[in-house]
Amino acid sequence: MFSPPKILERKLLEILAEDIGQGDVTVSAVIPVGIDARGSVIAKQAGVVAGVEEAETLLESLGLEAKALVKDGQEIKPKQILLKITGDARTMLAAERTILNILSRMSGIATTTRDLLEKLRKAKLKTKVACTRKTAPGLMYFDKKAVLLGGGDTHRLHLDDMILIKDNHIALVGSVQKAVKMAKKNASLSKKVEVEVTKVEDVSEAVEAGADIVMLDNFSPRKILETVALLKKRGDYGKVLLEASGGITARNIMEYATTGVDLVSVGEITHSPRALDISLEMTSVKKV
Amino acid sequence: MFSPPKILERKLLEILAEDIGQGDVTVSAVIPVGIDARGSVIAKQAGVVAGVEEAETLLESLGLEAKALVKDGQEIKPKQILLKITGDARTMLAAERTILNILSRMSGIATTTRDLLEKLRKAKLKTKVACTRKTAPGLMYFDKKAVLLGGGDTHRLHLDDMILIKDNHIALVGSVQKAVKMAKKNASLSKKVEVEVTKVEDVSEAVEAGADIVMLDNFSPRKILETVALLKKRGDYGKVLLEASGGITARNIMEYATTGVDLVSVGEITHSPRALDISLEMTSVKKV
Amino acid sequence: MFSPPKILERKLLEILAEDIGQGDVTVSAVIPVGIDARGSVIAKQAGVVAGVEEAETLLESLGLEAKALVKDGQEIKPKQILLKITGDARTMLAAERTILNILSRMSGIATTTRDLLEKLRKAKLKTKVACTRKTAPGLMYFDKKAVLLGGGDTHRLHLDDMILIKDNHIALVGSVQKAVKMAKKNASLSKKVEVEVTKVEDVSEAVEAGADIVMLDNFSPRKILETVALLKKRGDYGKVLLEASGGITARNIMEYATTGVDLVSVGEITHSPRALDISLEMTSVKKV
Amino acid sequence: MFSPPKILERKLLEILAEDIGQGDVTVSAVIPVGIDARGSVIAKQAGVVAGVEEAETLLESLGLEAKALVKDGQEIKPKQILLKITGDARTMLAAERTILNILSRMSGIATTTRDLLEKLRKAKLKTKVACTRKTAPGLMYFDKKAVLLGGGDTHRLHLDDMILIKDNHIALVGSVQKAVKMAKKNASLSKKVEVEVTKVEDVSEAVEAGADIVMLDNFSPRKILETVALLKKRGDYGKVLLEASGGITARNIMEYATTGVDLVSVGEITHSPRALDISLEMTSVKKV
Amino acid sequence: MFSPPKILERKLLEILAEDIGQGDVTVSAVIPVGIDARGSVIAKQAGVVAGVEEAETLLESLGLEAKALVKDGQEIKPKQILLKITGDARTMLAAERTILNILSRMSGIATTTRDLLEKLRKAKLKTKVACTRKTAPGLMYFDKKAVLLGGGDTHRLHLDDMILIKDNHIALVGSVQKAVKMAKKNASLSKKVEVEVTKVEDVSEAVEAGADIVMLDNFSPRKILETVALLKKRGDYGKVLLEASGGITARNIMEYATTGVDLVSVGEITHSPRALDISLEMTSVKKV
Amino acid sequence: MFSPPKILERKLLEILAEDIGQGDVTVSAVIPVGIDARGSVIAKQAGVVAGVEEAETLLESLGLEAKALVKDGQEIKPKQILLKITGDARTMLAAERTILNILSRMSGIATTTRDLLEKLRKAKLKTKVACTRKTAPGLMYFDKKAVLLGGGDTHRLHLDDMILIKDNHIALVGSVQKAVKMAKKNASLSKKVEVEVTKVEDVSEAVEAGADIVMLDNFSPRKILETVALLKKRGDYGKVLLEASGGITARNIMEYATTGVDLVSVGEITHSPRALDISLEMTSVKKV
Repeated sequence: MFSPPKILERKLLEILAEDIGQGDVTVSAVIPVGIDARGSVIAKQAGVVAGVEEAETLLESLGLEAKALVKDGQEIKPKQILLKITGDARTMLAAERTILNILSRMSGIATTTRDLLEKLRKAKLKTKVACTRKTAPGLMYFDKKAVLLGGGDTHRLHLDDMILIKDNHIALVGSVQKAVKMAKKNASLSKKVEVEVTKVEDVSEAVEAGADIVMLDNFSPRKILETVALLKKRGDYGKVLLEASGGITARNIMEYATTGVDLVSVGEITHSPRALDISLEMTSVKKV
Repeated sequence: MFSPPKILERKLLEILAEDIGQGDVTVSAVIPVGIDARGSVIAKQAGVVAGVEEAETLLESLGLEAKALVKDGQEIKPKQILLKITGDARTMLAAERTILNILSRMSGIATTTRDLLEKLRKAKLKTKVACTRKTAPGLMYFDKKAVLLGGGDTHRLHLDDMILIKDNHIALVGSVQKAVKMAKKNASLSKKVEVEVTKVEDVSEAVEAGADIVMLDNFSPRKILETVALLKKRGDYGKVLLEASGGITARNIMEYATTGVDLVSVGEITHSPRALDISLEMTSVKKV
Repeated sequence: MFSPPKILERKLLEILAEDIGQGDVTVSAVIPVGIDARGSVIAKQAGVVAGVEEAETLLESLGLEAKALVKDGQEIKPKQILLKITGDARTMLAAERTILNILSRMSGIATTTRDLLEKLRKAKLKTKVACTRKTAPGLMYFDKKAVLLGGGDTHRLHLDDMILIKDNHIALVGSVQKAVKMAKKNASLSKKVEVEVTKVEDVSEAVEAGADIVMLDNFSPRKILETVALLKKRGDYGKVLLEASGGITARNIMEYATTGVDLVSVGEITHSPRALDISLEMTSVKKV
Repeated sequence: MFSPPKILERKLLEILAEDIGQGDVTVSAVIPVGIDARGSVIAKQAGVVAGVEEAETLLESLGLEAKALVKDGQEIKPKQILLKITGDARTMLAAERTILNILSRMSGIATTTRDLLEKLRKAKLKTKVACTRKTAPGLMYFDKKAVLLGGGDTHRLHLDDMILIKDNHIALVGSVQKAVKMAKKNASLSKKVEVEVTKVEDVSEAVEAGADIVMLDNFSPRKILETVALLKKRGDYGKVLLEASGGITARNIMEYATTGVDLVSVGEITHSPRALDISLEMTSVKKV
Repeated sequence: MFSPPKILERKLLEILAEDIGQGDVTVSAVIPVGIDARGSVIAKQAGVVAGVEEAETLLESLGLEAKALVKDGQEIKPKQILLKITGDARTMLAAERTILNILSRMSGIATTTRDLLEKLRKAKLKTKVACTRKTAPGLMYFDKKAVLLGGGDTHRLHLDDMILIKDNHIALVGSVQKAVKMAKKNASLSKKVEVEVTKVEDVSEAVEAGADIVMLDNFSPRKILETVALLKKRGDYGKVLLEASGGITARNIMEYATTGVDLVSVGEITHSPRALDISLEMTSVKKV
Repeated sequence: MFSPPKILERKLLEILAEDIGQGDVTVSAVIPVGIDARGSVIAKQAGVVAGVEEAETLLESLGLEAKALVKDGQEIKPKQILLKITGDARTMLAAERTILNILSRMSGIATTTRDLLEKLRKAKLKTKVACTRKTAPGLMYFDKKAVLLGGGDTHRLHLDDMILIKDNHIALVGSVQKAVKMAKKNASLSKKVEVEVTKVEDVSEAVEAGADIVMLDNFSPRKILETVALLKKRGDYGKVLLEASGGITARNIMEYATTGVDLVSVGEITHSPRALDISLEMTSVKKV
C-alpha cells in the first residue's frame, strides 16, 4: 500500500478543500497576513500512531515545514509530541482540523489492531488479524493503511482484488462448488479465490473445487473446531487457508484465534474505531 | 443541509468508484450477465436510521429500483427491512458494501445523537446537542447530516461558516477581547461570532466585545455553574448563547446539560461512532 | 475567505487548463524552447487592485517568479506596475490571458465596491455595502473575495451559509412568521436567520419570530423610512439588522444608505462589473 | 460550439455544486420534503435571450421538468416568460440562483452583441463583430456561446485554436515577418495564422509572409483607412482578412466598421457585459 | 472486471469531453438543431468485437438509443453491423470518433488475443495467454478488459493487485529468496506472490521461499525446458505456476507454450495492437 | 501544442494514479522506506524519441531528480540512455511502468511518423504527412504531440478546431456545396473549412463554395491524378489545399504523395503504432 506522496497529496487536498469551502472566515477576520507560527501535534492518549506520512505530506504540500518525531506504527505515550510544524499561521490554522482528523482516525484504527494482536502474541498465537471492507465510506485507503501499520492484514483493497465469493453470490449461483469452479475457470491466475461458507460440509466442497481460502462465516468457535477436526481427518487441513469471520470482537477474539484458523477478520476495527485523542498546540509564535 | 440528489450522486459515485477499482472481479467471474435479483436491506440492531436518501440516490443512479420502507431519522427495530431493491444482480452485488457502509455509519451517528437527546428529553431539558468538526476525514457532509437526522445541531459545516475563534487563534492574537473585536469589525454581518474561552473572566470580555456564542472549553460542570451565576449577577445571562465543550460524553452529558448552557457539543458522536449493523440479503432471485 | 494557496491553486489551474486546451499552438510554433522573459503587469486605469494573490499563486505554481509591487485592496494609478514576472517565456505567454482576466475582473469588482463605500464615507455614513449571490456563474469565490478587498460585505458565500428566507420560500410556506419560526426551530444555533419582507407589517412579524436580519426587498427609500419609524415607535429598532435590497445602484445608493438601515446590498457589483484595464508587457528579454 | 447536453451537464453541475456547498440550509429548515412547485423564469428587461439550453439541461439533469417558451438567440420583451419549471420545490429553490446567474450573464452578452450588430445592419455593413478571450475567468464556453447566439464571431475558443501572434510574441521573436514565417513553417495546415501589427508597414510584411488574418491593433479609424488605401494600391487588399481591435466600444464601433475591415473585435462584450435582469417566480404551488 | 455502467460512464464522458473541447464547431455550423439520424456501426474487417458495452453505455448516457447486434467477445465478419443507433444527429456526430476509437482499439486487442489462443487450442494446449501492464497510458481498464474478452488472462490490474517482484526490486533487495520471504512476511494473505527470475537456480529458491508464481523472464524455450526438467526432478513441478515472459510474440508463442509453463505473457497484445477497422454510417435520416 | 508542465502534470498524475490504485503492494512489502536508487531509461530499439518532456515532468513532480540525455524528436540508437533518474526507490519503482508506457507509445508514434517523412524526403517531396483523430481513446494530446515531434502535421486537436465536414455530415445536409456554404456562413472567421469529397465533381463545388481544404477520401492515386488534372485545367489548382485520406499506409504512401496533393493523412500512425522498446534499469543503488 505504498502511494507516492504526490498521489497521496491529491486525496489529502480533496479532503482539506471540502473543509475550507469558500475560505476560512475566522482566520481571514482575526489573523493578519504574514504571521509565522510553530505548532506541536501532541498525543493525549497512549496508542499506536498512524497518519504521520499523510500529515507530513499535506503540511508540506501546503508550504509548511513539518518534522515528524515519531514513525508510523510506533507506540506513543500521552503528551508525546508527534510532529513539529513551522510556517504561515493562517495556513496552519486552516489545516489544523483536517490533519488532526486524519491522525486521530488512523491512529485509533492502528491502536485497536495492535491491541488485538498483542492479545494473540501473549498467547503465542500466530493467527493473523484482518480487517474487512467495512470502512468509513470512501476511506478504504486510510483505514486499510492504518490496519497495516497496526500489524493487521488489509484483506481486499477493493473489488478488483482477489475473488471473494460471499453469501449473496452463492445465493445467485446455487452452490459453493459451482461458484468456486466458475471462479477458477474465469478468473486470472494472478488472483486467489476465497469463498464464504455457512456449513461444515461446504468446506470440503470448496477445497475440492480449488479455493485458496475458505471463510467460515458466523461459525461459533465450537463449530470451527469441528470443521478443523473434519479437515484433519480428511487430510485437507493445511491445503487451504481458513478465515474465521462474523461477530468477532475484542471480547471474543481469543476463542476464535485458538481454533486453528489462519486468520480472523474483525469488522469493528474499521467500522467502529475509537479515534485517538490528538491535538495541535501552537506553543510559540511571533505575536501580532 | 439539503443537497439536490444529482449533486449528492457525484459524491456517492466517487465513493463507489474507489471500491470498484478496475472492476469487480468476483461478479465478473461468477455471476452471468443479465441476471436480475431482489435484495432487502435489513437492520440487525435497533436504532435511528440515516443514509436512506443516500442509498436510494446511489441505487437509482446505478439503474436499480430502490424502495425505501423507512424514512431517514425514523427509529428502527432489529430485522426491520429498510429498503427493497430490484434489478441487475451484478450491479447490486458491486454496490452492496458501499451502500451498507454509508447506512451503517450514518445510522450509527444518528442513533448515538438520538440517545443523548433522549436522556435530555427525559429530564425535560431543552439544551441542544451539537457535533463538532471532528468527523471522519472528508465525511463532513455525511457525518453532519446524520447528526441532523438524529436531532442534533450540526454546528459549523466547514470553515467558511460562522466565525469560531479557538485557543490557537487567541494564542496568536493575544486576547479574547482583541480577537472578538477584530472578528466583529472584519466579518460579514451574515456571520455569527463564537469564541472559545478557558477562564471565567473571559466570558464577560467576550460578551462586551460582541460575541454571539461563547464556548466554555474544558470547563468542569462546577465551573460552568459559577460562570452562569456570574453572568446572571452581571445581567449578561441570556445575552449570548453558551456552549459547553470538551470531554463531554454519553456518560457525563447530564452534568453539563443541567448547568444552564444552551448547547453541549460532543466530539465522539462523529469521531468515534459505533456503526449500526445493517446487511443486504438477496432473498429471491431468478436462478442461473 | 482565506484559502491556503495550494487549495486556491486547484481552482486557478482548472481555469488555465480550459484556456490551454490541447496546448498553445502559437507559442509552440513561434517561441523556441528555453527562452526566458520578463513581464510587467501594468494597470491602464486607476482603481482598487484585487487578484494579486491569485495571480502570484498561479504564476508561482507554474514555475515563474512573481513579485507583487502592490497589495490586494490597495488603490492603484494608471501605468502603475502591479507585478513583475520572470521565467520561461512560453509559460508566461500561455498564462498571460488567464492572469489578466482574473486581475481585471476582481479589480473591477473591488473598484466598484470601494467607489460606493467612498460615497458613504464622505457622508460619514457607517452603513455597510454588501454584494449578493448574483455573481458570474461559478465565480462565487473570486467575486466575493474582490468585494471583501474593496471593503464590502460578502454576504452569503453559498447556500450552506446563514439561513436566508426569500420571496419564493415564503410563497411556499405561507407567511413570513411561519417561515422564520421553522428556521429558528430547525436551523443550527451557529446560523443567523435572515428573512426578506415585502410589506412593512411583515417586519414586526419577523422580529417577533426571532429573525436576526430583515431584508427590505424593493422598498422605496420612503417606505424604508416609514419602516424605521414604525420600528422605533415599537421599540424594535436595533433589535434586528436591517438590509435594503433590490434595484440599488451607484446612482441611488445614497437615498437608501441614509434611511437608517445597517446594510445595503447591490447586485450589480458582481453581476455587471466593469473590468479594470490591465495588461502584460514583456519589457525585457533575451532575444531569440 | 455544440456540446452534447451530457457533456455540458458536467460543467453546470460543477457550478451548482459550488453554490450548494454542504447543502442548502434554508430549504432544509423551512421547506418540507416532497412538496412540488411551479416556477416561471421571467425577463425583467428586453434583450436577446441566451442560456436557455444550459438552463434546461441543468434543470432536467436535476429531475425537474423544464419547458422553454423561447429559443436561444431570440429577442425577448419585459415580463416575457422564458421557461416554465415543474417539480420538487427544494431542488428548484436550491438551483434558482445558479440558473438565473447563467441566463442573466449569457443573455446580457448576447444582447450587447446583437445591439452592436444592429447598428452595423442599419448602416448596411457586413463587417463582422467578434469577441476576444477577455472573458470572465473560466467562463470561455458560456461567454463565447452567448456571443455566437447574439450573432457575433467567437474568435479563438482557446489557445489550441488558430495561431494568433500578438505583441508579446513579436517582442520575443523580433519581427512580424519572422514570427509569421515560423508559424507557417511549424503550424498545422489546419490552422489559420493571424498576426497583430502596430504599424502600417507591418501589414504588407505579414501578407507576404503568408498570414491569413492581420489584426490592426489600436489603429485609429484614420490609420486603418490609410492602411486599407495602401493595401489597395499594392493589390493586397482582399488577400488577407483585416481585423480592427483595441479600444472599440459601442460608442465608436461605427467609425471602425466603416473603414473596410472584415472584422471588429470588442473586448467589453465579454469582459464587462451588463447582466440582463431575469427572475424566477414560483406562481403556483401545492401549499404546505 | 465488471464495472457498473454508471461508473464506466464517468471514464467514457471524460474521454468524449476531451475530444469535444469547447464544442463541435462543424456540427454547430452545418447541422440544424433537432434533426434525428440513424447510424450503423459496421465492421470493415473480421475479428473479435470488444467495446460494445462501452459504446452502448456512452451512447445511452448521451440520450441516444443504441441497439447492439453483437455481444462483446463474439467473432464478427466484414460488413457486419455491430450496433444500430437512433437519435439526435448532432450528438451522434459529435460522439462518432470517440465511439469508434474505443471499439477499434478494444476489438483490435481482443482479436489479437483470440488469434494467439486459437493457435494454442489447435495444438490442444491449455497454456494460458496473459497480457502485461504495458498498455496505452491510462487505458489499463479498456486494454485489460479487451484481453479478457479475447479469452486472455488480465494479469495484474494495477499495482495494488498481487505482489510481483521484478528485476529492479531484486536488484535493490539483493536476492530472489530474500525478496520472496519479505513478501510472504509482509503481504496480505489475500495476495498471491509472483517473482521474476533470470536464472534456473533462482526458481527453486523462489519455490522454497513460498512464491505462488515464478516468472521465467527472457528464458529461451530451451532454458525453460531445462527448468521444467529440473523442477520435475526435484519434485517441485506443479507446486508453483510457471509463467514465460519477455520477447514472446505471435511468431514464437508456440515454442514457449509447449514447454510446460502454465502461462505465457505477451506485451505486444496491449502495447502495439492493430486497431480493427470499424466505421459509422448514417444510412437513413430525415433530410434537412 | 505547448502545455505548461504544471498543466501537463495533471494528466500525468491521473494516469499514474490509475496504476497505483490503493497503493503498490510489492514495493510496500519488499522495499524498505528511505532507500535511494539510480535508474537509467534505456532504448532497446532505434527510433525517434518522444515523451521525454512528459517523463521529466512526471518524475520531477514525484520528487525524483530526472536528467534527460536526449531531446524530444531526436533520433536514438539501441542501448542509448534517454534519462537518468535519482531518488526514492519506492517512488521510482511505482512510477516505472507509467513512465515507460508513455515513452514507448509516444516514441513509437514519432518513429513511425518520421519514417514516413524520410521516404518523402528521399524523393524530395514536400507533401506533408498528417495524423487523424483516430488515436487511442483519451490520448489525443499524447498521440498528436508525438506526431508533431516526428515531424508530422497534427491535423485537428479536437472538435472545436477547424471545421471538417465529413461524409456523415454531408449525408445529413444533402450536398457538399450546401454544407460548405453553411460552414462559411456560420463559422468563425478564425476557422479554416475543410470538406471531405468522394467524387471528382465535388471538388470544384467545394472550391467554389469557399472551402480552404478538400479531403479526397478513399480516392485511388489514379483518381487523385485525374482530380489534380481537372483542377489545373479549371485554374483551381492551388486555390485550396488538397488532402489525400483513407487507406494510406507505410506501404502505399509514395503513390499518394506523388500525386500533387499537399497533405496525406495516415490513420495507422496513431491508431496502430508499434511501441518502441524502452526499459528502466536500476544500475546502482545503496543496497538494503
